[in-house]
Amino acid sequence: MDKVRVGVLGSTGSVGQRYVNMLRDHPWFELTALSASASSVGKKYRDASKWVLDTGMPEWSADMSVVAADPKEFRRARVELVFSALPSEAAKTIEGEMADAGFAVVADTSAHRMDADVPIMIPEVNSQHLDAIKDQKRKGKRGLIVTGPNCTTSGLAMTLKPVQLSYGLRTVLVSTMQALSGAGFFGVPSMAIVDNLVPYIKNEEEKVQQEVLKILGDYKDGFNNAKIKVGASCQRVGVLDGHTEAVFMITEKAATPEEIASCMERFEGEPQRLKLPSAPMPPIIIRKEPDRPQPRLDRMAGTPERARGMATVVGRIRKEDALDNGIKYVLLSHNTIRGAAGNAILIAELLKAKDMI
Amino acid sequence: MDKVRVGVLGSTGSVGQRYVNMLRDHPWFELTALSASASSVGKKYRDASKWVLDTGMPEWSADMSVVAADPKEFRRARVELVFSALPSEAAKTIEGEMADAGFAVVADTSAHRMDADVPIMIPEVNSQHLDAIKDQKRKGKRGLIVTGPNCTTSGLAMTLKPVQLSYGLRTVLVSTMQALSGAGFFGVPSMAIVDNLVPYIKNEEEKVQQEVLKILGDYKDGFNNAKIKVGASCQRVGVLDGHTEAVFMITEKAATPEEIASCMERFEGEPQRLKLPSAPMPPIIIRKEPDRPQPRLDRMAGTPERARGMATVVGRIRKEDALDNGIKYVLLSHNTIRGAAGNAILIAELLKAKDMI
Amino acid sequence: MDKVRVGVLGSTGSVGQRYVNMLRDHPWFELTALSASASSVGKKYRDASKWVLDTGMPEWSADMSVVAADPKEFRRARVELVFSALPSEAAKTIEGEMADAGFAVVADTSAHRMDADVPIMIPEVNSQHLDAIKDQKRKGKRGLIVTGPNCTTSGLAMTLKPVQLSYGLRTVLVSTMQALSGAGFFGVPSMAIVDNLVPYIKNEEEKVQQEVLKILGDYKDGFNNAKIKVGASCQRVGVLDGHTEAVFMITEKAATPEEIASCMERFEGEPQRLKLPSAPMPPIIIRKEPDRPQPRLDRMAGTPERARGMATVVGRIRKEDALDNGIKYVLLSHNTIRGAAGNAILIAELLKAKDMI
Amino acid sequence: MDKVRVGVLGSTGSVGQRYVNMLRDHPWFELTALSASASSVGKKYRDASKWVLDTGMPEWSADMSVVAADPKEFRRARVELVFSALPSEAAKTIEGEMADAGFAVVADTSAHRMDADVPIMIPEVNSQHLDAIKDQKRKGKRGLIVTGPNCTTSGLAMTLKPVQLSYGLRTVLVSTMQALSGAGFFGVPSMAIVDNLVPYIKNEEEKVQQEVLKILGDYKDGFNNAKIKVGASCQRVGVLDGHTEAVFMITEKAATPEEIASCMERFEGEPQRLKLPSAPMPPIIIRKEPDRPQPRLDRMAGTPERARGMATVVGRIRKEDALDNGIKYVLLSHNTIRGAAGNAILIAELLKAKDMI
Repeated sequence: MDKVRVGVLGSTGSVGQRYVNMLRDHPWFELTALSASASSVGKKYRDASKWVLDTGMPEWSADMSVVAADPKEFRRARVELVFSALPSEAAKTIEGEMADAGFAVVADTSAHRMDADVPIMIPEVNSQHLDAIKDQKRKGKRGLIVTGPNCTTSGLAMTLKPVQLSYGLRTVLVSTMQALSGAGFFGVPSMAIVDNLVPYIKNEEEKVQQEVLKILGDYKDGFNNAKIKVGASCQRVGVLDGHTEAVFMITEKAATPEEIASCMERFEGEPQRLKLPSAPMPPIIIRKEPDRPQPRLDRMAGTPERARGMATVVGRIRKEDALDNGIKYVLLSHNTIRGAAGNAILIAELLKAKDMI
Repeated sequence: MDKVRVGVLGSTGSVGQRYVNMLRDHPWFELTALSASASSVGKKYRDASKWVLDTGMPEWSADMSVVAADPKEFRRARVELVFSALPSEAAKTIEGEMADAGFAVVADTSAHRMDADVPIMIPEVNSQHLDAIKDQKRKGKRGLIVTGPNCTTSGLAMTLKPVQLSYGLRTVLVSTMQALSGAGFFGVPSMAIVDNLVPYIKNEEEKVQQEVLKILGDYKDGFNNAKIKVGASCQRVGVLDGHTEAVFMITEKAATPEEIASCMERFEGEPQRLKLPSAPMPPIIIRKEPDRPQPRLDRMAGTPERARGMATVVGRIRKEDALDNGIKYVLLSHNTIRGAAGNAILIAELLKAKDMI
Repeated sequence: MDKVRVGVLGSTGSVGQRYVNMLRDHPWFELTALSASASSVGKKYRDASKWVLDTGMPEWSADMSVVAADPKEFRRARVELVFSALPSEAAKTIEGEMADAGFAVVADTSAHRMDADVPIMIPEVNSQHLDAIKDQKRKGKRGLIVTGPNCTTSGLAMTLKPVQLSYGLRTVLVSTMQALSGAGFFGVPSMAIVDNLVPYIKNEEEKVQQEVLKILGDYKDGFNNAKIKVGASCQRVGVLDGHTEAVFMITEKAATPEEIASCMERFEGEPQRLKLPSAPMPPIIIRKEPDRPQPRLDRMAGTPERARGMATVVGRIRKEDALDNGIKYVLLSHNTIRGAAGNAILIAELLKAKDMI
Repeated sequence: MDKVRVGVLGSTGSVGQRYVNMLRDHPWFELTALSASASSVGKKYRDASKWVLDTGMPEWSADMSVVAADPKEFRRARVELVFSALPSEAAKTIEGEMADAGFAVVADTSAHRMDADVPIMIPEVNSQHLDAIKDQKRKGKRGLIVTGPNCTTSGLAMTLKPVQLSYGLRTVLVSTMQALSGAGFFGVPSMAIVDNLVPYIKNEEEKVQQEVLKILGDYKDGFNNAKIKVGASCQRVGVLDGHTEAVFMITEKAATPEEIASCMERFEGEPQRLKLPSAPMPPIIIRKEPDRPQPRLDRMAGTPERARGMATVVGRIRKEDALDNGIKYVLLSHNTIRGAAGNAILIAELLKAKDMI
């Protein structure tokens, strides 16, 4: 099989680096275009990007020349699919231009998430929303746009889906303890977080609430939100990677903690059925120890090797007596892998497997 | 006025040190007995205690000889009131012995919190529970026992009380981000918490749930729990001092965030009315900034100087649309001051002001 | 005595805040002008400054209007002495303008430190360098400029001085572990320092080497560097405040660790003799415990209350057998107090006591 | 080739876990015995060991039954070579018993490091010290004992060796910033290190000074220390893994920083010549960036995959003008891999390649 040529928009930032890292030796994709802002164009990737992952920069990427975020450049590199890790202002314009120019755009930015014909895709959860892309085509778009969810939504929607399927969901309240990398490398000053935490992340609670409803809803001539009530309180803590979320929920039908654990544990979706290269087997891992999940120990969970960091880890599933049909648990999801680059790559694999690129 | 002589049980630990520190130049109390475990007895306090506060050890305490946790020793030091910061196993026995020997015991340990005639006292919240002590006397106890709440309960109950009074409370869910000092100096290994968090604190959720109901309930020939549903998810984060809590609540009567803020801001209790030396004025501080409270910036809040760390700081009060009559907010309370030593000293001041010692 | 009116240049940054905080109730100085960059001018200090100290912002400062860094504004506020906490580019111009306009400028910036007639002053160490100011006057300058040293130089020069006086110094090597606040609030991203350290601080090693020689040298018709060899390796670690430095030294005359401790412990300078309000008594504190000094426990050392954070704490003084006449020790100095605002205030007190303002 | 059966003494601790992790799929060794203290004997490894690495516990180890640290048990498991990660008190006795019982013991403990016929082995640096083992045999020992150095010595001796060979070494001073894992999982309480550092590690400076001299010395009918002067100042910082060391040195012959970099970069030893499975190629990596090495980014350096964490990373090589023939640099070495388990495995590979087991 010929590999699909892919490019990365915003390749020098911390999510951009995750893409480069995860596309090492990818069996289906070959990375041929790295773009960044004007000041980096023309530099070697080695010089344009201050690499922050402990794996070291892949040799082949180090010598690539950074190009502009311009469809012409991507066409020159014979790219078919574009991953976007752009800052949000830039994303709005450039992602649209790329789609108009005929590229398949997979974005983990928020710019197009709430567009009427753009899915927010977690491949295990709502692969049926790919139907929206057919409508994009029908409207005459040359390329296509798919987005991944906000990094906080990601693990939450993943763990809600099997419960929704088996027991129905009425209300979900989540209190998050989010990692520093979610704000980008320069996002949180050390003086703001050492011996401290910050109980606020701009627009985050709104995003979580909206996105969960869209993801868990239907698509039929348009998106129909799920009939669930979702509330969030979002906090930043001094953890490098891995968002931890304490979830309280009211289910439609009563369920024991064991039943909840069991439905999560058995859950799988299209990526697992299609054996996509980056699909974690299983997508949700249940830990029985009383003190798990923990970000440092569990954020890289996921089998096989290529799916490291792609699994969502759940623990402490217990009854919440303060609510009728109440359940509470704690989840952990790697915010720059499952919550960004890794999820986008899995979307791209799904598009490929479904012959949509 | 002659000062009341007081002693501290468990004076060398981190809460014990808080007592010693906060009793510097106390206008009503004089610390004359410092006890610790057998291996420390006879040593100078300077040598028995590895001081961990950035204030330095008070000079007068450094040369005191550590005594055994024995009523005879405390009588010899002419102690009238005993603060207990004992580990829980030791607390059960020794606090009882001290009360039997005629001392007034103010404990921030859990040993006697759920006893039928022992109040869990937050002086601003439930000073009327001092009636239980009269029943202790009536039953023939020579001394008395009062306890303070768990460090997590403390800030929560403080902020719930004004809401309960003004709007009624139906359901409370709290997700905590608790400080390291809550586990004692040696409680949490650094390897367990750097770049990490631990979503579990043994028995903590149960304590919070039980204690809030007792504190917010009535006392009339016995304690009657408040008719509120309380659920908790407790997590440990890498912060030295100051418990942060994300609270979701359902009130009986609808209230706007402004109304909630206002009722908290105007709240005051017996300590404020009696102008007790360690009473924070006001007990609850509302921060308007979007990103407060933060532990490092707000944990020492409290006016006057002697009440530093005694105020509970609340921010981010907002509507929770996922719940009917839903409100959510974030609170911060200093766990070893308001949640332990400082609260106990305030109880002692209340006992003194009420002529109960 | 009428108070001297003072102003602060760069009042909203983290060192600027230290000035405001340390000038609360100052017996000799009254703060009447707070300046900041154009975007803050006209705002209340409360709104212009994101306060990061755990003491809370002093009430009287909160309502002051921020003014431009303009001599006219400072004259209008009847300022006599100006403290500068400006960023280095701005410092070069504005400090000179202020001195030209007749103000006494006390700067903890590097802009003028190596000027031929400007002393780098640590009042205990080189108060005789005030002679340079007389030469400034002689040259016709209307105001005057004095600087404080780099925050890393501060504790080092303080501890070297008594050794130089008693035993002579040949060579000094220092390896630093510097606090985050030294880089300003936004200086070090959390992603760069959590579970990490950075073995590089731009220009820092050069500054330490040069400044120590000037400070420990003579002034006689110009500065003559001390005949000492100084080398440094500077590292940043994840500590909020307090620079720790591991020092190796070769003395001229042999000295035992006890003798070194003793000469440091007995050391005092003009501030102690003049009993200046912010003078720490003593300026160097020797800790005997094997594991001190530690930043969190020792950075606020200093007696009396107004001198908290002004003492330099030394521990682990021992022989270094790898060097002839070798000694090694560890020192700790609060970088934004003794290494910046506090040292500058002490300089101002010295100027006042010497009738130079 | 049949695999050599190996066992691990002290397999449940943090270094013990590193052994288990690094022996996954080892081409030459098969792990057949995991021992731990009495309370763990008979349990599954999964239950006896609280796994702290982010890789997850290898499946095959999880079901192994933990055995006693008894030669009979190890014989039953047909072990030939024993890795020891015992606490130091236990090490003294048990390692000797194992050697007496005929096992080859490779220890990263300090118990036997200074024994007259036991080498402290860094395979790249002093493989010729294996001659000492022949003397062990000659004295009639049935098994043999080899030790690895203290985790701080490891990277230091590695980087000193090429300089010693090319330019000669006169004096070495090192100031360390050591990781938390060096003290074991429970070694450093979080309250002791968050927003702090500890400038003391018991016996560490003495070990570094002694071990470097033995490792860089000769073996000829006994060990002869190198004629170098070595001094150390050891500090603990809040980093999980990876010791950073700031080194000052005086060479015999003058050398430029470029020459020092070059001799380190070209350095290789027996493991590289023999292409041992865990040998890093090259053993020393020179970083040119001004701000490297950094523990989080560089501690896992090492190629090929099996040698991750085995390379020593050096940066900031520069002239030290305060010393004649002075050079300074910063090094980083992974303390539980290169400084413990990984180095021991490399020793074992060397023994195997040399037919000494």
